[in-house]
Amino acid sequence: MTSRARLIGIDPGLRFTGWGVIDVDGNRLIHVADGVIATDSSEPVPARLCALYDALTALLQTHKPNEAAVEETYVNRNGSSTLKLGYARGVALLAPALEGLTVAEYGAMSVKRSVVGTGAATKEQVEMMVRRLLPTASISRNDASDALAVAICHAHHRASTLRVEAGSRSAVARGAGARR
Amino acid sequence: MTSRARLIGIDPGLRFTGWGVIDVDGNRLIHVADGVIATDSSEPVPARLCALYDALTALLQTHKPNEAAVEETYVNRNGSSTLKLGYARGVALLAPALEGLTVAEYGAMSVKRSVVGTGAATKEQVEMMVRRLLPTASISRNDASDALAVAICHAHHRASTLRVEAGSRSAVARGAGARR
Repeated sequence: MTSRARLIGIDPGLRFTGWGVIDVDGNRLIHVADGVIATDSSEPVPARLCALYDALTALLQTHKPNEAAVEETYVNRNGSSTLKLGYARGVALLAPALEGLTVAEYGAMSVKRSVVGTGAATKEQVEMMVRRLLPTASISRNDASDALAVAICHAHHRASTLRVEAGSRSAVARGAGARR
Repeated sequence: MTSRARLIGIDPGLRFTGWGVIDVDGNRLIHVADGVIATDSSEPVPARLCALYDALTALLQTHKPNEAAVEETYVNRNGSSTLKLGYARGVALLAPALEGLTVAEYGAMSVKRSVVGTGAATKEQVEMMVRRLLPTASISRNDASDALAVAICHAHHRASTLRVEAGSRSAVARGAGARR
């Protein structure tokens, strides 16, 4: 069983989408890159979705991750904001799936529990732990630390999935099969 | 001023996405094709978004429309349904924009007013008028007639935009610029 892999975490939003790439080698986590994709709010929505899609596709082709994980953002806002978040999440799920990657989704609580140890952790606690686990991360904005946190969460879950699979069988990732 | 054009209307949904292609030549509307893209609800969401994206892209490459119009669905449902609708709308806005098409958006009221003459029209009235305006349409499901209705709505709006533009200036379409 090999557990070495490159993972990309994505925290999607129409205005700002955070992303973070890490390598996992057994229990070790190695920071590769992170950043934020911003779209111009004065542009029409279809153009902003194109910009997000192109940026994500370029990142996937540059860093060549083996698996992707996307944050399942909680929805407590009005219908119009939720719909816009949906556009960005749709593109964030589509882009890696089109590149043939398995795409896992994790709720904010799972991510916090995985990184800080409690689902009630604050944004600041998540960022602090991400900086501790990945000292070379740049984290220009909160969104990038959230994206790295999703990647770390996926690293933990896939490790336990691999352990379970070695014995019986299981599936954590709700991913798309390879294509293209 | 030439007003001949091919338009695609899209009524997006994660389970069923209706589509309809029409030609506009002055005041004449000519039906080209219509149908419904269904995705398998037992598949993971990223795979369903890939299926929707691939089907839309194939339609755009087959029928080569000049402009696209997408229905702006009203949102009165729970957050989770709205988010899923958002994924599908995101992909429906992205696919034609990536092909370099202008993408216009119309609310359900505008579509009904444009096709039936009143924003309070029922689904059945819309379908009846679409069948009358485009007698050769197949319309296997309601979603296809809604998509053709969006295309008809765009045909009307772009005609008046062209008339206005011939005099002063105006912009109805909130579209994306050409790329790819």
